[in-house]
Amino acid sequence: MSEFIDQNFKVPEPVLRRLPWYLAYAKQTAACGETSLSSTQIAKDLNIDASQVAKDLSYVNISGKTRVGYDVSMLAKELEKFLGFANRHNAFLFGVGNLGGALIQDSGLAQYGLNIIAGFDVKYEMAGMRINQIPIHHMDRFPELCRQTKTEIGILTVPVEFAQRVAEQMIAGGIKAIWNFTPYRIRVPEDIIVQNTSIYSHLALMFNRLSAMDKNK
Amino acid sequence: MSEFIDQNFKVPEPVLRRLPWYLAYAKQTAACGETSLSSTQIAKDLNIDASQVAKDLSYVNISGKTRVGYDVSMLAKELEKFLGFANRHNAFLFGVGNLGGALIQDSGLAQYGLNIIAGFDVKYEMAGMRINQIPIHHMDRFPELCRQTKTEIGILTVPVEFAQRVAEQMIAGGIKAIWNFTPYRIRVPEDIIVQNTSIYSHLALMFNRLSAMDKNK
Repeated sequence: MSEFIDQNFKVPEPVLRRLPWYLAYAKQTAACGETSLSSTQIAKDLNIDASQVAKDLSYVNISGKTRVGYDVSMLAKELEKFLGFANRHNAFLFGVGNLGGALIQDSGLAQYGLNIIAGFDVKYEMAGMRINQIPIHHMDRFPELCRQTKTEIGILTVPVEFAQRVAEQMIAGGIKAIWNFTPYRIRVPEDIIVQNTSIYSHLALMFNRLSAMDKNK
Repeated sequence: MSEFIDQNFKVPEPVLRRLPWYLAYAKQTAACGETSLSSTQIAKDLNIDASQVAKDLSYVNISGKTRVGYDVSMLAKELEKFLGFANRHNAFLFGVGNLGGALIQDSGLAQYGLNIIAGFDVKYEMAGMRINQIPIHHMDRFPELCRQTKTEIGILTVPVEFAQRVAEQMIAGGIKAIWNFTPYRIRVPEDIIVQNTSIYSHLALMFNRLSAMDKNK
């Protein structure tokens, strides 16, 4: 069935959230020396309905064998391809502060297909620096470098009070997809993709659950 | 109304996800020199229903004045307190690889109340190192240091194939809340808090939306 599904159509968000779990699970299974994996086994270990797992995996160009299941390394490979992790996507990063600097240092992102090719900051003293081999430029150079490199992805890690303004500059310069790490809800035109990753709101959740637990002891 | 709500009870997750937006917005408003802010204004700029904003803010120990609204700096201060960002929560980090090393370097986490006091890794050559002033120990030392420091929060940044095993070691050593940055769905006992922050699944979403957009051009 999956060969009829165009890989470029908009896969439902819940499916795209679950597929990386299967990839992680397949990698772990492979690391344990297993060669095959059934959707029932995935379902049991990840606590997801088996029919859901099969349905999710039907989006991906892979088929399991009856009574044997999926070939583990093939499953991992196809999932990586499907999720875009096997391609190289160039990205710019905006705001080389604490979190921005940390993300530039995270070479792990490249393993998932995200290749940060430059960082931008408004601090003139940062221009010309390199972090993890990646050049840092002054923000003024962004429109020119965006045209030259046709970069479509921008990572937003500026202080929260500049989030909206910098997002607008990014869009004006040619960025099509913004990975927003600030807790600010940026407003963008309809044709711009925004992915919010608010790690600090996750912290708030964890703190609240911990203090509720301490209280109930 | 808010004074009757115990700050330590379990605040609904959607509320805890929205409150940081209001905090970010209040900070931005303060940076622009404004001193007061109404829930109508917050609602309009963040594209949320005004009654929802007022309801969310009723959890927090702050009251607005009729026709004037909230005092901006007070609102920001109370939100920070309520969200746990004003307290200091000690944490250990497990797996000082790319992402783990990056998070240790992110001094921004401390501004949100998370204080990483040590990192652990299984690589013996890393023991004794310091990153951003934070000591790195061999994993063997974790149970002893956890007892000594009574650390309850553990950040999980090991390679995906070790996620489950290390999570179990963390729990056995005394960790109560796991901030899981791996894409692996760890299984834990009921009384353990897990917060999943899967930044790579956000990447997959963004890649898919971008390629769907390119296709439809």
